[in-house]
Amino acid sequence: MTDSPDSTSPERDERHRARMVRKKAVIDARIAEAQDERGLLLVHTGIGKGKSSSAFGMAARALGHGMKVGVVQFIKGRRDTGEQLFFRRFPDEVRYHVMGEGFTWDTQDRARDLQSAAAAWAVAVELLRDPAIGLVLLDELNIAFKHGYLDVDQVLADLAGRPAHQHVVVTGRGAPPALVEAADTVTDMSLVKHAFQAGVRAQQGIEW
Amino acid sequence: MTDSPDSTSPERDERHRARMVRKKAVIDARIAEAQDERGLLLVHTGIGKGKSSSAFGMAARALGHGMKVGVVQFIKGRRDTGEQLFFRRFPDEVRYHVMGEGFTWDTQDRARDLQSAAAAWAVAVELLRDPAIGLVLLDELNIAFKHGYLDVDQVLADLAGRPAHQHVVVTGRGAPPALVEAADTVTDMSLVKHAFQAGVRAQQGIEW
Repeated sequence: MTDSPDSTSPERDERHRARMVRKKAVIDARIAEAQDERGLLLVHTGIGKGKSSSAFGMAARALGHGMKVGVVQFIKGRRDTGEQLFFRRFPDEVRYHVMGEGFTWDTQDRARDLQSAAAAWAVAVELLRDPAIGLVLLDELNIAFKHGYLDVDQVLADLAGRPAHQHVVVTGRGAPPALVEAADTVTDMSLVKHAFQAGVRAQQGIEW
Repeated sequence: MTDSPDSTSPERDERHRARMVRKKAVIDARIAEAQDERGLLLVHTGIGKGKSSSAFGMAARALGHGMKVGVVQFIKGRRDTGEQLFFRRFPDEVRYHVMGEGFTWDTQDRARDLQSAAAAWAVAVELLRDPAIGLVLLDELNIAFKHGYLDVDQVLADLAGRPAHQHVVVTGRGAPPALVEAADTVTDMSLVKHAFQAGVRAQQGIEW
């Protein structure tokens, strides 16, 4: 475990310094090896919290660097999400599309869900063909795969055809294996615990 | 696995509808039970990507709902991070503090790191005492615990004393057990794969 913050001594400080010198050498060498730059495909999956919010945090980062961002939300949940309210402030920088028809257990209409998934993907393809867009965020796309509303191979073909420098981040539980295989960076957000389990309702600024 | 998107039939659609009706009943009951509303303590830990970006996505959400946000970054990395460049656009809504002294393997100076961690925590405490701030983001705070730069018990006491409606999100690898215990929602971002492993360097809009 950690030492207490006040336990400092010349010996301990020197041990720390020597350890960090070694660590820095290892890390610097790894950074020097990693020189490739290209548009990445990132996948945020798993049952924990943070998949979509992390993608929106990347959108904020990208905007900070002057990039343009495209968003397609494949699940139309509540209309007043914080992310939508916020990123719609910047219409010249963010193309924001809320598509889909709500969570499928709300609609209970498979035929309509199939149609709206296809329409949402058509909008995504427009973004994936626009070299001016540096980051494309496909929020809850994995849910469309889970219900068989979109064909993974077709989606992967469209992703592969995007501009070379364009980043894409896909979110949602249950990323299909072929998407994980194709991705550059994959994070599984795993649930350690969630306030909902303790009877706390979804709150603004946190879940939406 | 998923069926192909075009395999639709009246029987299949009806099975789908019946399954979703049952699912909706279960989910609606769970939502009805979760009625508590209060400021949450969230922890993003693990070795995967997405801990800080998810916290910044929550900041965007909170701003969308008209909340004010306070940020303390406990590690001073590169100066031109996208999150800093972006969120500093909104000085009336975001109090943004970059503290700390870089990754400890860069500084190699434990005494100085201790001092800068204490100074960063003093700034965090100001935010934690301000009821006008709806979300406090303590980025890479866990790194300070890992190196023994801050006392977990003192930090937890300060967190416990914050305004009742204020949310706090803490990021960083290796969250200490006492922090996990105290938290309402904990996500472990686990690494499935990372582009860095394939020789891709950290890129703007993605890692910074």
